[in-house]
Amino acid sequence: MIVVMKSLATPGEINAVVNQIETLGFQVHLSHGTERTIIGVVGDDRPLQNHNFEMLNGVEKVVRILQPFKLASRDFHPENTIVEVRGVQIGGPKLTIIAGPCAVESRSQILETAHAVKEAGADILRAGAYKPRTSPYTFQGIGEEGLELLAEAREATGLPIITEVMSPEAVPLVGQYTDIYQVGARNMQNFTLLQAVGKTRLPVFVKRGLSSTAQELLMAAEYVLSGGNHGVMVCERGIRTFETATRNTLDINAIPLLKQWTHLPVFADPSHGTGKWDLVAPIAKGCIAAGADGLIIEVHPRPEQALSDGAQSLKPERFVELMSDLRRLAAAVGRVL
Amino acid sequence: MIVVMKSLATPGEINAVVNQIETLGFQVHLSHGTERTIIGVVGDDRPLQNHNFEMLNGVEKVVRILQPFKLASRDFHPENTIVEVRGVQIGGPKLTIIAGPCAVESRSQILETAHAVKEAGADILRAGAYKPRTSPYTFQGIGEEGLELLAEAREATGLPIITEVMSPEAVPLVGQYTDIYQVGARNMQNFTLLQAVGKTRLPVFVKRGLSSTAQELLMAAEYVLSGGNHGVMVCERGIRTFETATRNTLDINAIPLLKQWTHLPVFADPSHGTGKWDLVAPIAKGCIAAGADGLIIEVHPRPEQALSDGAQSLKPERFVELMSDLRRLAAAVGRVL
Amino acid sequence: MIVVMKSLATPGEINAVVNQIETLGFQVHLSHGTERTIIGVVGDDRPLQNHNFEMLNGVEKVVRILQPFKLASRDFHPENTIVEVRGVQIGGPKLTIIAGPCAVESRSQILETAHAVKEAGADILRAGAYKPRTSPYTFQGIGEEGLELLAEAREATGLPIITEVMSPEAVPLVGQYTDIYQVGARNMQNFTLLQAVGKTRLPVFVKRGLSSTAQELLMAAEYVLSGGNHGVMVCERGIRTFETATRNTLDINAIPLLKQWTHLPVFADPSHGTGKWDLVAPIAKGCIAAGADGLIIEVHPRPEQALSDGAQSLKPERFVELMSDLRRLAAAVGRVL
Amino acid sequence: MIVVMKSLATPGEINAVVNQIETLGFQVHLSHGTERTIIGVVGDDRPLQNHNFEMLNGVEKVVRILQPFKLASRDFHPENTIVEVRGVQIGGPKLTIIAGPCAVESRSQILETAHAVKEAGADILRAGAYKPRTSPYTFQGIGEEGLELLAEAREATGLPIITEVMSPEAVPLVGQYTDIYQVGARNMQNFTLLQAVGKTRLPVFVKRGLSSTAQELLMAAEYVLSGGNHGVMVCERGIRTFETATRNTLDINAIPLLKQWTHLPVFADPSHGTGKWDLVAPIAKGCIAAGADGLIIEVHPRPEQALSDGAQSLKPERFVELMSDLRRLAAAVGRVL
Repeated sequence: MIVVMKSLATPGEINAVVNQIETLGFQVHLSHGTERTIIGVVGDDRPLQNHNFEMLNGVEKVVRILQPFKLASRDFHPENTIVEVRGVQIGGPKLTIIAGPCAVESRSQILETAHAVKEAGADILRAGAYKPRTSPYTFQGIGEEGLELLAEAREATGLPIITEVMSPEAVPLVGQYTDIYQVGARNMQNFTLLQAVGKTRLPVFVKRGLSSTAQELLMAAEYVLSGGNHGVMVCERGIRTFETATRNTLDINAIPLLKQWTHLPVFADPSHGTGKWDLVAPIAKGCIAAGADGLIIEVHPRPEQALSDGAQSLKPERFVELMSDLRRLAAAVGRVL
Repeated sequence: MIVVMKSLATPGEINAVVNQIETLGFQVHLSHGTERTIIGVVGDDRPLQNHNFEMLNGVEKVVRILQPFKLASRDFHPENTIVEVRGVQIGGPKLTIIAGPCAVESRSQILETAHAVKEAGADILRAGAYKPRTSPYTFQGIGEEGLELLAEAREATGLPIITEVMSPEAVPLVGQYTDIYQVGARNMQNFTLLQAVGKTRLPVFVKRGLSSTAQELLMAAEYVLSGGNHGVMVCERGIRTFETATRNTLDINAIPLLKQWTHLPVFADPSHGTGKWDLVAPIAKGCIAAGADGLIIEVHPRPEQALSDGAQSLKPERFVELMSDLRRLAAAVGRVL
Repeated sequence: MIVVMKSLATPGEINAVVNQIETLGFQVHLSHGTERTIIGVVGDDRPLQNHNFEMLNGVEKVVRILQPFKLASRDFHPENTIVEVRGVQIGGPKLTIIAGPCAVESRSQILETAHAVKEAGADILRAGAYKPRTSPYTFQGIGEEGLELLAEAREATGLPIITEVMSPEAVPLVGQYTDIYQVGARNMQNFTLLQAVGKTRLPVFVKRGLSSTAQELLMAAEYVLSGGNHGVMVCERGIRTFETATRNTLDINAIPLLKQWTHLPVFADPSHGTGKWDLVAPIAKGCIAAGADGLIIEVHPRPEQALSDGAQSLKPERFVELMSDLRRLAAAVGRVL
Repeated sequence: MIVVMKSLATPGEINAVVNQIETLGFQVHLSHGTERTIIGVVGDDRPLQNHNFEMLNGVEKVVRILQPFKLASRDFHPENTIVEVRGVQIGGPKLTIIAGPCAVESRSQILETAHAVKEAGADILRAGAYKPRTSPYTFQGIGEEGLELLAEAREATGLPIITEVMSPEAVPLVGQYTDIYQVGARNMQNFTLLQAVGKTRLPVFVKRGLSSTAQELLMAAEYVLSGGNHGVMVCERGIRTFETATRNTLDINAIPLLKQWTHLPVFADPSHGTGKWDLVAPIAKGCIAAGADGLIIEVHPRPEQALSDGAQSLKPERFVELMSDLRRLAAAVGRVL
């Protein structure tokens, strides 16, 4: 941490800052410039995050140098973390493809889709039983029945399943069925929920919030990790920008950036990232070429009748095509599918 | 709702869209242009929000015309809603000033602040017992003890209190103490929480999410209203933009816009909206001049020692000054303080 | 400037950075932490802005401490700059109101508007002769004829005039007519244009770009100032965010922030900042309450027939009302109108 | 175009809108709903872009249906445009790689880089002689001498050259040397400049503005095309968002979206799009996988000494590696390099 003093700060003001830092048990390095005095704190000053040096008289700004995450950081854990789910290795050389409908709608819909994505080569089945929706008047998911149908689809296909958990109270129930908890974009900073899944030992898949930085995404992962749950994956799914031609703006830069910063597996969601089914395939390819460890893709047998997110869902036949394209691409970038 | 067909859409594709709309019980108006056919749906088509006409062959885009909120809309409730809390009328000609520290830290801190803001003329006392924090390693609030101290401060000063509730499970406990539930920016789309407070009959103060539109803020209010709870207030508190010189960008446009769209009281939070104590006073004045019904302001007796948000907290003496400025200003814009 | 080394940086890499800084004539302060070494540069290191210390081996990041502007900074010029234009003092206790149509359309239109805004109490007349338009197919302004009509309106009313200059080549011609050059938002980083107006001695009114930070706005001002032209005013006019309910998001925070950073007069443009005539009055008031030195407002006698920006233009009778509201408000915030 | 009337609009107000549209020579379709009346305009209503129906009494909003660009649209020109520059075919199955330093700094620097990128397989040499810089105090390019050195590098290597033109006055001079005009991001809405290059017959490479939508980028292209110059290429180069970990956010969604909307060649700039040399290679691959027709990449023999943009420049050896990776990737996505 570096405290930059105002150009007119008095020696007394400078001393007050120095004293407060030293009182908290840290050493300082003073640099008296011709325009400004700069006070550097020596060592791991994360414990000082709570303190408001900005408020002391004569302080112009405080610059924090260290990344605030620790358990999620590659500095402290240089090798890639591999998360294992029912025999699927996530985060290794083999790419992981998660696919399925936005929501479980009916027994036949989820079974049909599960078989289709399994045949096309997907590794994990996704579908929501509880849906976070902007409007209280739209379809909110079919609830526990959906969890049961997902478990049945797992039985039928052998695919592990992932589904969203929306509140701390629902963690035990959802955990009876799912193999992976999904924490959705709108809940990325639902800290009570992050703490609740952090206390379990099921893997957690955290999606980046619409207006969250890559650093904040890793802080959300840090919440789960600091609960003792090491099975965390993070997922870029599009951020909100001024561009309205697409539903969101998939931030492809975040993929290699996150791979540098963290040892956790990094996914991308081209369905939510674009919001348009005819952009899903090119963006899916782009994300793999940029280094993602896997993808999560919405597939629905009849998107035009889907109860949510139909506009961004692929039909099974297009998903088959995409998987075949991705296989060629994976080989070209040194991965396997 | 208007469905715009692609320039090359076939008559069969156009008929398919028309048939689907009619099957759902709606009438259409067809407009065959020289470049495009446009299909308009007649009437209140909110029930069609679930349907993915975007996915039908030949469809270029779907334009939704009606605002998706109804109970929150001024169209359906032209008069201002007045929310009454222990004798304080919120949303009428008198401005409502909510003030207090970011967090309850200790008995003396909250009592000292409560007396100070009361004397300065504040109407309601704010402070968090549970704090949503980006990092799991920083101060998370003192919990139920904080609620007890808030209740004690209410006893001592007569000020009603508002405090944040962070999860559906905490709604009953927090409701034993508080007069108003605050739903924080990061929980604005925590739909399970919105439903939980919607089932209570305590007033709810909903803060706009960092990347939520004004329309989405009213949809969050709609969640609470549709649960049967009519005591809802909304609050502009700054959105996330590319500008990093301030913590957030307070969207002042949203204040008169929300006043046009909704009958609910509209607040502004210049503390979070700017993140810098020396910008709080000018922005507080700006928001009142633009038509806000009230303000929520962070005040702390010793901001430099505050356990959270010190950089944006006013000292009591500056709050006194601001209140006196606001009194003159209120008169100039036809309000009372 | 502070250079933060990577946690694994070698002593050799650290020395290389130190040597390069010293070779460039600067002294360093070294701070060896337990996790990172930090290298501070002593003194006014603006000349080092050109250098890419980020590229040296072992460097994690470079933090620049000093604001990059100098002539625009209040640090170097603590008193407010007053720009005088034909007897109008801009930047002093009296607020300056600039009003007029988006574009000069005809002799009668500009004369009618000029008289109307003069009577309502405006200080300066605005109108474009050359219009920057997103589409090549829409009205682009009437050119030099518009400049002549503006000059005629000045004769008729005594109001000084301001009009936009869009290219360096047009600077001499526009300068024959106008009292103030306007540099529009889309040209805020047209550096050739900034240099061209910087060489003249007519005052320059620089509007913030749609995606420019407040710091970059002052760097644009710095371009003009560094050419020797001291008559610079800056104007907040709305930035581009994810919110689409308004044309732009007027960044009210920027007003008091700019007043802290710079001695130049700070304006606001509620017409472009909102894009909706029925939001102009509340936002105009908000900007004055937040400390703006003046406003620029679009007024058109028949907005529904305006050739550009009609949707955000006030009719003269509404402008009269607004001026009367602003007079009361100005008094309440210690200004005069 | 669709005009949505307010719910309380009177028959007189509706008639007034209808009459005005008909007076302008267009037919309308009226749709009287239970909540709103909607007025659709039949046919190509681009000429109505100038008109402010928003201002008529009783109008709630105006929805424009047609894309505002025409010459740039794939609707009007379904086949890909191939731009030919000295034997290089841009926009066909073969990818086009443009590479070189940010700026021409010296004879040896540009010649060394030109030979290096040529050997690595680049098709076109880039470098700036005139540099748009945020600060007036930083390196602004070496001017005409830079153009001469670029021409010499073309002689020496056979590579066509591209360089930025910053003002209409400079168009003739720059045109004496360059093979392609580059219009930079900050000048994307410098309409005078777009008109000036539109009058020439040299190809124009238009970079997307930092806060410009994909639609506005094509409107900038439309300015050039409407001047009669058909050799236009567009380039995604990163937009400005709230994320500060990277210099910009490369909007990969825009690549397949632009390919759908326009027949013009679509490029990507991973150097500016990320601002960090160690993200350039993964993002370059991502853009090609997503369907870009080519890339523009900054390469500098000694990035740590570069006078601008060093932090995002590749060393020649890394560029060689990237080209070899791209060759494998191109084959996997059905392109050639």
